[in-house]
Amino acid sequence: MELELHQLELAAERLKPILHHTELDLSSTFSAMTGGQIYLKCENRQKTGSFKIRGASNKLASLTENGEKRPVVASSAGNHAQGVACAAKKFGVPATIVMPKAASIAKVQATQGYGAKVVLEGSCYDDAYAYAKRLCEEEGAVFLHPYNDLEVIAGQGTLGLEILSDLPYVDVIVVPAGGGGLLAGVAAAVKLINPRVQVYGVQAEGADAIAQSFRQKALVQTETVSTIADGIAVKAPGDLTVSLINRYADGVVTVSDAEIADAMLLLMERCKQIVEPSGATSVAAVLNGKLDVQGKRVVCVLSGGNIDMSFIQSIIERGLVARHRRVKFIVTILDQPGSLVRLLNVIAGAGGNILTVLHDKLSPRLHPNETAVHIACEVGGAEHGQALLASIRAQGYELQEE
Amino acid sequence: MELELHQLELAAERLKPILHHTELDLSSTFSAMTGGQIYLKCENRQKTGSFKIRGASNKLASLTENGEKRPVVASSAGNHAQGVACAAKKFGVPATIVMPKAASIAKVQATQGYGAKVVLEGSCYDDAYAYAKRLCEEEGAVFLHPYNDLEVIAGQGTLGLEILSDLPYVDVIVVPAGGGGLLAGVAAAVKLINPRVQVYGVQAEGADAIAQSFRQKALVQTETVSTIADGIAVKAPGDLTVSLINRYADGVVTVSDAEIADAMLLLMERCKQIVEPSGATSVAAVLNGKLDVQGKRVVCVLSGGNIDMSFIQSIIERGLVARHRRVKFIVTILDQPGSLVRLLNVIAGAGGNILTVLHDKLSPRLHPNETAVHIACEVGGAEHGQALLASIRAQGYELQEE
Repeated sequence: MELELHQLELAAERLKPILHHTELDLSSTFSAMTGGQIYLKCENRQKTGSFKIRGASNKLASLTENGEKRPVVASSAGNHAQGVACAAKKFGVPATIVMPKAASIAKVQATQGYGAKVVLEGSCYDDAYAYAKRLCEEEGAVFLHPYNDLEVIAGQGTLGLEILSDLPYVDVIVVPAGGGGLLAGVAAAVKLINPRVQVYGVQAEGADAIAQSFRQKALVQTETVSTIADGIAVKAPGDLTVSLINRYADGVVTVSDAEIADAMLLLMERCKQIVEPSGATSVAAVLNGKLDVQGKRVVCVLSGGNIDMSFIQSIIERGLVARHRRVKFIVTILDQPGSLVRLLNVIAGAGGNILTVLHDKLSPRLHPNETAVHIACEVGGAEHGQALLASIRAQGYELQEE
Repeated sequence: MELELHQLELAAERLKPILHHTELDLSSTFSAMTGGQIYLKCENRQKTGSFKIRGASNKLASLTENGEKRPVVASSAGNHAQGVACAAKKFGVPATIVMPKAASIAKVQATQGYGAKVVLEGSCYDDAYAYAKRLCEEEGAVFLHPYNDLEVIAGQGTLGLEILSDLPYVDVIVVPAGGGGLLAGVAAAVKLINPRVQVYGVQAEGADAIAQSFRQKALVQTETVSTIADGIAVKAPGDLTVSLINRYADGVVTVSDAEIADAMLLLMERCKQIVEPSGATSVAAVLNGKLDVQGKRVVCVLSGGNIDMSFIQSIIERGLVARHRRVKFIVTILDQPGSLVRLLNVIAGAGGNILTVLHDKLSPRLHPNETAVHIACEVGGAEHGQALLASIRAQGYELQEE
């Protein structure tokens, strides 16, 4: 199979009136950090919060243009669900989305909000997929694959056309990859128009089937996946996507969960943007030297922004500990009135802002007249944290870092 | 004093090569929620993370054009500090910023990052201001006022010019107001060009000196301020800003801290944007019916995005509790092996995701063979939370909501 320029142009024409041409934003922060000129393609602010609506809309447009009127069925735990639901509403086609039972409530509600019927089935994506395929056969519906479909790939490729139109002198485009639809579409579109521009994929270390496929120039599946980037945690990429990627992409690199979390935090702090873990992999790759960006014009695709608010809390927590903005320690004090106040006065005097205190007098390693106090404290950084601990020790307290 | 169109045009010319023309973004979410066409002016993604750089840059441009070469001094706990520091670097002028001792470490570091000298002095902004004025006299430096200065006001007004140029048919512009520099500048700019367009200010309920000033058509100061929106917590607005606002604005409304926090959460969840509390007041006003936006083209100015990550955690926590995505309760269990496991099995069976467990057998209201278990749980919403509590009670447990 082949993806041709006229298919991409047709997709762009179809999508223009219904989707956002998302912003391409120069980041002076990331440029200064890397020595490249780093632009962000803000697809996290696309309709439905991710690029998936591009492929789903192009597929539905092609079906309805061909007189197809059957309802559609899709399986997804996340962005594809919302993309298909929203596109189906736009084209007036009934949609059923099969989601695994563990799908987040927020994503189920968002999908239902677009008017789609949601069926919760199976303990993982593969179960939901199998059920959706069966449902299609039983009901004579059309199955809308999340990535292994040329019309879907062409839809995702329109994101590449927008980049070339907004920044014709771009040198490198960095694209998150899970099933490979976005990377295949963008790589093909960009190379067909301007072979000088390099296109790289990024995967999570714990879900690297496409990186392996690219190295081996074959279709590789992995047995398991393990990453915080749920949007690209795919064991089995498509034969269509992999064949396009192996032909058109310049490479596929991987990033760790810690690198992804740190990139998400920087995107919030410095760029004021909420990006989901998979969407932050492109920035993670560039900030951690996985690609040579020195002196180049580089576009990092922020592919989506759908993330549970409670997960953001964890990401921030993790980031603050990693940057030494939080210290946790245990202090032994005497079990008598006024002991805790005295300790807290020392901490206040050293500028520590207390987050939690746990007072535990049952620990077996304590003397009968002692109590252990577990404390979490906000500080300005590593230096401030060490000064705080030193001033507690200077008062004669026994202290243990957690 | 008067602000004239040619001053605004001159400011726009000066700022064009050095600042961002920030994006104006149609929000389908907020449009659907209000019945208006709601646009967001994303000044949170301006250089230094807020509009303050506009006024500071215009002031410094006017000084250097007049041959002024003295160093500048400013006092600020936040965005003005970063704005002056960054602008001073751009114009090659030495800058000293006086910040109160309680200023957040992140903001101190950001200001130093632009090359300014930071002096920590005083327990509140007023102390820092007094010290900065003294410093100016001693060192023969120029004091750069955060809002009560015509060149600063003209700089902030350029934001209004950008809105009119991007959306000429705009009906209403909603602007956060503290000292009043942004509101005065935008109101004057917009009315001078197109008197049909309405301009409203928004203040926090706990810091409403400009709202009071507008009602009384006089300069009113408040004794105290109390709001989470630290960026607009100003007791004493300027005589220049208030006189321009009273002349050009169409009204000034107020919003509560709860309304601000909810707007911030929606901006993160639905628009994928980090906005600081003061910057979210415009959206809060529109979402809570403080202004008539039905059928109108409305621009909400997101004036800044500088916020501590740990504060975002609190905002999310508060929002999740308010939306019943978190339940907290105390269950009495028997003090014997296996009791806690049995309870946790009931919770797991009802789909509750446990966040914290505190096991307390010392409560005086318990029988000697009982233990109190304090539990915090993540649920899908109010209905799910109530079903969870019901299924625990159905097993015969005594349960008390916290």
